Amino acid sequence: MTDRPALLLDLDGTLVDSVYQHAIAWHKALELAGIKLSVWRIHRRIGMSGGLLADSLARETGHELSEKDAAKLKKAHARLFAAQLRDVRPLPGAQDLVRHLTKMGVSWAVATSGALASALPLLKLVNLPPGVPVITRDDVVHAKPNPDLWIAAALRLGVPIESAIAVGDSVWDLLAARRARALGVGVLSGGYGQDELERAGAYRVYEDPADLLLHIDELGIRVD
Amino acid sequence: MTDRPALLLDLDGTLVDSVYQHAIAWHKALELAGIKLSVWRIHRRIGMSGGLLADSLARETGHELSEKDAAKLKKAHARLFAAQLRDVRPLPGAQDLVRHLTKMGVSWAVATSGALASALPLLKLVNLPPGVPVITRDDVVHAKPNPDLWIAAALRLGVPIESAIAVGDSVWDLLAARRARALGVGVLSGGYGQDELERAGAYRVYEDPADLLLHIDELGIRVD
Repeated sequence: MTDRPALLLDLDGTLVDSVYQHAIAWHKALELAGIKLSVWRIHRRIGMSGGLLADSLARETGHELSEKDAAKLKKAHARLFAAQLRDVRPLPGAQDLVRHLTKMGVSWAVATSGALASALPLLKLVNLPPGVPVITRDDVVHAKPNPDLWIAAALRLGVPIESAIAVGDSVWDLLAARRARALGVGVLSGGYGQDELERAGAYRVYEDPADLLLHIDELGIRVD
Repeated sequence: MTDRPALLLDLDGTLVDSVYQHAIAWHKALELAGIKLSVWRIHRRIGMSGGLLADSLARETGHELSEKDAAKLKKAHARLFAAQLRDVRPLPGAQDLVRHLTKMGVSWAVATSGALASALPLLKLVNLPPGVPVITRDDVVHAKPNPDLWIAAALRLGVPIESAIAVGDSVWDLLAARRARALGVGVLSGGYGQDELERAGAYRVYEDPADLLLHIDELGIRVD
């Protein structure tokens, strides 16, 4: 079925417009933990596993996080992000894209580095059709940039990961896709530059879900 | 005096870590005006004149703003940004950079697309030495990407703009620098990708003020 590759979609920055709120929430949470970092440096880590993000940023600033500190930090981020949830919107075309994929009979799933509890209110924003598999941080040992999330999503769909297309807004999505041997497709809606996504291995880069849907034939997903 | 080019510095994203808060504030203000836009698209306009930003974003989404609407929008943005002011920090090295430039006797000035009222609390964060000229939106007819702000700053310093170096975090800073015939230098601390700044004409790109200060000899500003 080379005319219908499976599509694996990231959530934050790919289906919902939540990356900037995440960056602000991490900035505040890190500052509460005594870690001072510019927001742009945090922005460039969104999409990674939260644990990895906290560890790597702490290490870069000369801190060492105990397991307890890291758990506290992740909890503070979740609280500060939740406080901004009412400002988070679906990205343009996200609802159309998920409706369209399901209508076309494309095998597709969501795979996010976030926990299920944080993902649920965001999935509601895009009107996820029933039956679409959702793989979260809770389902795998290592989140992105490890390939586990994309691989678990392909397994759940019963498709070979080598023929799947993984779509994300961050460098970590694309690096994870390469490690998984999936084709990585980037979207600019998380705020990375096009060049950064291409250098991380993006096969194609679209502006947002609306732009991806408009050009979906380029991915070999034929519209009947 | 080719060993001491004048340095013209942008404020938001260049000396203070305020770009993400600006993006969130514009997002909310635009939504209040009935204009729905993804945050990343707004992010890529920060650094422009506020009027131009509002007009261009409204036009792209099929709205037309009356002068009254635009004024209301700018006022809402100022209010929503002020509400986040306590989360805004100086960028790493900003205070060192401004102290160092003054100590070295380099001619330097600040030139920002923001209004003086919004700039004042931000300038306080970087401990601006007395006597440093500050050119704001209120001093010129057109803000960036028009060259007026950089040109006015050079005039105030009494130096030819053609020998000055203009430093900013956004594509608009660099486009304005090219129009002014100044040399443009980029910083990544506003969240643009390096490639975006280079394609807009950046002569060099540094991470943030700390990184610029560390490599200031590259700009031909010799440390004694």
